[in-house]
Amino acid sequence: MFTPGPTEVPSRVLLAMARRIQNPDLDEEFYDFYEELCGDLKHIMQTRSDVIIHSGEAIIGLEGAVLSLVEPGEKVLTMTSGVYGDGFIRFVEAYGGVPVEVRAGYDEVVSPEDVERTLEREKDVRVATLVHCETPSGTLNPLKEIGEVCESHGVVLIVDAVSSVGGVPVEVDKWGVDVCIVGSQKCLSAPPGLGIVSVSGKAWEKMEERKEKVKEFYLNFLTWKEWWLEKREFPYTHSVSLIYALKEACRMLLEEGLDNVFRRHERVAKATREAVKAMGLELFPREEEYCSATVTAVKIPRGVKDEELREHIMRKYGVMIAGSWGKIAGKVFRLGHMGYNAQPSKALQALFALSETLRDLGFPSRTEEALDAAKSVLY
Amino acid sequence: MFTPGPTEVPSRVLLAMARRIQNPDLDEEFYDFYEELCGDLKHIMQTRSDVIIHSGEAIIGLEGAVLSLVEPGEKVLTMTSGVYGDGFIRFVEAYGGVPVEVRAGYDEVVSPEDVERTLEREKDVRVATLVHCETPSGTLNPLKEIGEVCESHGVVLIVDAVSSVGGVPVEVDKWGVDVCIVGSQKCLSAPPGLGIVSVSGKAWEKMEERKEKVKEFYLNFLTWKEWWLEKREFPYTHSVSLIYALKEACRMLLEEGLDNVFRRHERVAKATREAVKAMGLELFPREEEYCSATVTAVKIPRGVKDEELREHIMRKYGVMIAGSWGKIAGKVFRLGHMGYNAQPSKALQALFALSETLRDLGFPSRTEEALDAAKSVLY
Repeated sequence: MFTPGPTEVPSRVLLAMARRIQNPDLDEEFYDFYEELCGDLKHIMQTRSDVIIHSGEAIIGLEGAVLSLVEPGEKVLTMTSGVYGDGFIRFVEAYGGVPVEVRAGYDEVVSPEDVERTLEREKDVRVATLVHCETPSGTLNPLKEIGEVCESHGVVLIVDAVSSVGGVPVEVDKWGVDVCIVGSQKCLSAPPGLGIVSVSGKAWEKMEERKEKVKEFYLNFLTWKEWWLEKREFPYTHSVSLIYALKEACRMLLEEGLDNVFRRHERVAKATREAVKAMGLELFPREEEYCSATVTAVKIPRGVKDEELREHIMRKYGVMIAGSWGKIAGKVFRLGHMGYNAQPSKALQALFALSETLRDLGFPSRTEEALDAAKSVLY
Repeated sequence: MFTPGPTEVPSRVLLAMARRIQNPDLDEEFYDFYEELCGDLKHIMQTRSDVIIHSGEAIIGLEGAVLSLVEPGEKVLTMTSGVYGDGFIRFVEAYGGVPVEVRAGYDEVVSPEDVERTLEREKDVRVATLVHCETPSGTLNPLKEIGEVCESHGVVLIVDAVSSVGGVPVEVDKWGVDVCIVGSQKCLSAPPGLGIVSVSGKAWEKMEERKEKVKEFYLNFLTWKEWWLEKREFPYTHSVSLIYALKEACRMLLEEGLDNVFRRHERVAKATREAVKAMGLELFPREEEYCSATVTAVKIPRGVKDEELREHIMRKYGVMIAGSWGKIAGKVFRLGHMGYNAQPSKALQALFALSETLRDLGFPSRTEEALDAAKSVLY
């Protein structure tokens, strides 16, 4: 499996779910365990903000952030450079917000200067949305620079960091991120089914000052504030087994050390890019500096068909890679090297299989050169 | 653990989660596995309706049903005899519906005659809500009779069967239930984190005929219709590990056979009631025929304090029982015998611990008589 999430889940994490289930609503030990997990997540996200964990997929955090923060008729700065950035716009519109777009091409990243200019012009914008890693394009937006611009304008910044936190540095507090949204199944390599969000004081204030109260319960962030943060009660029975798994996944990550984890991702990503270029392929992002260290998006070469490529590599070599979404579907394939997938041995196996698949399908890939290029980065 | 869900989860089910995670969005085998699971669930719920499984807690089904089906300004028949029935009213109000209440006391059940009379009077009601097992009160509403009344009036009936399906008979199609909501962690004894709902053709029609479209994505049932049922794609990455666990839990249930499962629940429930009465305690439901076979609610005797009771039985005897909620909190304690908890040996252990705890706290319980009463039902 070399797909951009859900990633391979290590046995240690899978086996953590074999732990006996307690009734989480009545078990004081579980409450402590849960708080420890929130502490680990805060460390990984580099924040002192509150962290809440939803039972459900990470998209709960995206929809929940918009419905909790955006008031009907309110202007929202929607920065987009890809499929998920565009998805944010649809959520903003659905909940009655008025998107003020800052747009970059799917093969580019959002420009902090554009953001600055737009916020100078649109003085009444108080909320902004950004996707850190645009997984379908393999790009990483310059969050640090954009965060600083948003903070200096007093804007509540919502960031989809689903496929970046735990793979590349994300410093929530230092970079001015107010709501940081993470999924269990991406760089953390825990099973899918938990949505993690950090919420800053500024974001809580905005929610509490709303003119029109939110009618939603499950996705409303304030539900978690009123129940968990203020009364130390869960608003519903939590996903105990997945919580056990996520804790073990965080433990593995912290044992390795955040800096080592980031270096491993950087190294595997660079090796992947070098190998892919040596095969004679072209990266999808226009500049190599736009590339995310968690996923590599590659243009499908002329004469090769998306589905055939993925089916062949799976059937003959047992390697699962991914296509893409939205308007770049069929034009791009992706190698996911996030979390537990970001291992030199896995990368070499996948790159070998990819090159041989391309050859099988008539594209004159250079397997030896590709593997040499990867090895010289990895070892 | 003798609490009314989450229940003890059998090792077979816990270990099913150790299975390697595939990328569910790309893995054809997982799609087949998932469809098989939906088939098992249909069998357990006795329905040919569509079944959808949300990633998240069962309350997603309650809120989702209301937001998907109820239009602003629309009258909704809200039948209630307890905490969860009242909760349904709050959801209906939050989403702009106008509740038409049929109410019974918390120690009673909803009367089908009252429902009939109300529907005769309120001709424009097209949706109704009912809780089958009111877990906090230990009562079971007469779903079969109420379902028939609702069906004869063409009303879309939403039923919270979270703590009944898999413990007592629920025949969704025969009884005219349009939306049946189940949780993974109750009678099915899988880990918490999945919300299961069946949706009838009549319910889909009502959703599709709405004047005002639903803005919500995650909780909107139509999202699952458009993605899963029509395109065989998941709207988000599903909770693979919990799906594995739920499949194993259903397999265990079907291996035992539905009728045997129901008989086991009935027997353990009756033994519990007989024992509790022999201790000198009083059941909370006014009539014994109102009692659910999945949970027994008992009045806390004079001189004994709720919290002290639960803490003592846990600390000294290692048995976890539950208090109650809402306006009966502090007045009632509950013994949960649903799913894997509904075992004679577990019941005897819990009943012994309960009687001895009561004696420790100064209430003159009769342990020997209680155990004799239980044994004569069980063996």
